[in-house]
Amino acid sequence: MKDAVRQLVTGKNFATVATIGPDGGPQASVVWIDLDGEELVFSSLVKRQKVKNIERDPRVAVTIFDHENPYHSAEIRGTAELVDDPNKEWSVRLSQKYLGEDPPEGEPESDLRYAVRITPEKVNEFCV
Amino acid sequence: MKDAVRQLVTGKNFATVATIGPDGGPQASVVWIDLDGEELVFSSLVKRQKVKNIERDPRVAVTIFDHENPYHSAEIRGTAELVDDPNKEWSVRLSQKYLGEDPPEGEPESDLRYAVRITPEKVNEFCV
Repeated sequence: MKDAVRQLVTGKNFATVATIGPDGGPQASVVWIDLDGEELVFSSLVKRQKVKNIERDPRVAVTIFDHENPYHSAEIRGTAELVDDPNKEWSVRLSQKYLGEDPPEGEPESDLRYAVRITPEKVNEFCV
Repeated sequence: MKDAVRQLVTGKNFATVATIGPDGGPQASVVWIDLDGEELVFSSLVKRQKVKNIERDPRVAVTIFDHENPYHSAEIRGTAELVDDPNKEWSVRLSQKYLGEDPPEGEPESDLRYAVRITPEKVNEFCV
């Protein structure tokens, strides 16, 4: 992945993750995201629709744009893998990245989370 | 659509439009968008992949978040309709909305555009 796209993902920019719903139509949601080696990673509660979608069809499309210059953006298509995250390490890591602090209280420990790891297969960068 | 979601769409916020690609997987891209009555509208060159996707399967998922407070976001799922826009009225209208001026020079007049009109069917609003 080229440096300019890496900077979009490692910056404090919000991303959208699109998945395929049970009816074959698109679903999308806004997430915190980061890069770990060559993989994109976000954290999700196990119970979320997007997790169910990924279990059925792991193909995802991520968009991200620079908050300071939204005319610089990227679409990253790839395959997602759901990795158990019993200690919610990625939830903490992303909260620290975006908020500079641990995640807000209120999420029951019994609400399990996955680290969703995306292997990029196609990257389109746009600079309008 | 509730007022808070209307404000996301009418504000100068960038949206992501997710469509279904020819292989059934998700595709997504960042767009300018606005509201016209109860429909979401963006402008696209006819030749774009997302237009081909919509011709095949009109289901789309739009995400949008408040640029000033990205923790306020919405996902809007709906059906897209491609409307001829020979005078590129929507390209001008959206450029005026986001940039306060007409679209940058450089697009050949022969590059046709559609106004892509989305009828919302399901709206999820998130305030973290």
